Amino acid sequence: MNIISKTRSFGGTQSVHSHVSEVLGCDMRFAVFTPPADVHGAGPYPVLYWLSGLTCTEENFTAKAGAQRIAAELGLVVVAPDTSPRGEGVPGDPDGAYDFGLGAGFYLNATESPWSKHYKMYSYITRELPTLIEKELPADAVRAGIFGHSMGGHGALTIHLKHPDKFKTCSAFSPIVAPSEVPWGKKAFSNYLGSDESAWAAYDASALVSKNPSGADILIDQGMADQFLEEQLKPERFAAACQASGQSLTLRMQDGYDHSYYFIATFIEDHLRWHYERLTRR
Amino acid sequence: MNIISKTRSFGGTQSVHSHVSEVLGCDMRFAVFTPPADVHGAGPYPVLYWLSGLTCTEENFTAKAGAQRIAAELGLVVVAPDTSPRGEGVPGDPDGAYDFGLGAGFYLNATESPWSKHYKMYSYITRELPTLIEKELPADAVRAGIFGHSMGGHGALTIHLKHPDKFKTCSAFSPIVAPSEVPWGKKAFSNYLGSDESAWAAYDASALVSKNPSGADILIDQGMADQFLEEQLKPERFAAACQASGQSLTLRMQDGYDHSYYFIATFIEDHLRWHYERLTRR
Repeated sequence: MNIISKTRSFGGTQSVHSHVSEVLGCDMRFAVFTPPADVHGAGPYPVLYWLSGLTCTEENFTAKAGAQRIAAELGLVVVAPDTSPRGEGVPGDPDGAYDFGLGAGFYLNATESPWSKHYKMYSYITRELPTLIEKELPADAVRAGIFGHSMGGHGALTIHLKHPDKFKTCSAFSPIVAPSEVPWGKKAFSNYLGSDESAWAAYDASALVSKNPSGADILIDQGMADQFLEEQLKPERFAAACQASGQSLTLRMQDGYDHSYYFIATFIEDHLRWHYERLTRR
Repeated sequence: MNIISKTRSFGGTQSVHSHVSEVLGCDMRFAVFTPPADVHGAGPYPVLYWLSGLTCTEENFTAKAGAQRIAAELGLVVVAPDTSPRGEGVPGDPDGAYDFGLGAGFYLNATESPWSKHYKMYSYITRELPTLIEKELPADAVRAGIFGHSMGGHGALTIHLKHPDKFKTCSAFSPIVAPSEVPWGKKAFSNYLGSDESAWAAYDASALVSKNPSGADILIDQGMADQFLEEQLKPERFAAACQASGQSLTLRMQDGYDHSYYFIATFIEDHLRWHYERLTRR
């Protein structure tokens, strides 16, 4: 694990690291906020994994969400990985589209060629990255949560629902909740997973929650002026599936907010406090 | 004045506008945060002008500083202009350097050809922009302050010192305080203003404060791990000049912080509260 940069922020440390990912077959970057040790001790601290949306790298959340202030106050480690494999030999969208390939790994393990060689973000996020973080940083393996935005909200929901014992708490901003039914998801799943839609359900939050509610609470914030709300996001699908299966869900429709990081920054404090409270409850 | 974008943020509105600048002879953009009217009424509100540093546009501060949260709470308008003229016919650095020309207007009125045609950021910030803002937005002309970062800290200090009745409060992060004596300033001033150094003093905060202390307090935050501290910033020069002339100055040397927006975000709340308190004091 190499250090790309290390910057003081709210008394803690915002750093960016690189490492060789065996799972993805390329170098990967991730950003980490570590809270001030003089306030909170040396840790290990509760840890949150943030999954970003389409086109993002490890930098967007780190620079724009304003999470460091509350993470420093509470004593939380926050990890923000990149959104896809990258680098030499990693194929991108043939047409250079923003919604598939580079920056658009969809937090799944691709089974179709040529994607299946590198696009294994599901294994990367659920196994390789936390193992590295827990080994190298003061992050508590038994107090971990996951959250994300848009495509990353999809990632957070699906990973929490499949691993509620590893990622105990979950929240999302503007998540893709029914990828099997919307254009972004159909494009990604048909390419990464093939045309047999029965394979898609393993990465569809609404399908997953219908069969396996997690037992935890889930928090979702969704802007009502979000340009992608009707065509791509459809939070009502997930809400209906949660209600049917008994999954606890708090869905907040936020008047006037769009899909941007200005929306995330406005409500990030609520999400961090929400995770912290549940991860540290005795 | 055109609207480029309008986004809800912390209950208020983050917008980006464009207009034809007669002073600069080009189209210009600026960003504005307007606080929530349902909390603070329709205004006019106290207004702060933020001047950004080298390479920045109106976007850097807006996306990264996290000022909206406190501006929404207090009821402040915050205006973030671009840092130089731009567009067709506006000359940049012949070598494409980051520290002169486009993105590096230094908040002065150039007198040397070819810069003197467009590079009039001093008149733009002190006259044209506030006149437009006060006409089109709920900004109170008599409760205005100015602050900035690095080159923009230089701009804020010099403009406050020359117009303490217009820009009544002033603060800065990591400002260039003695441009006549440091590489960034010498390059800019010799090109924009010519080789006669007697013309430089009108845009040198340390020279200005020696002769004309403003009567207000000035707040400066400076990171001690700032890579530009020794060669370009030299806050001790300004502190000495303030002490000699009786200018009130609070200079805070912040251990471990660098020159980045992570530093600004950490202390932006202090600055906003500091301006607000002084602008609304009776």
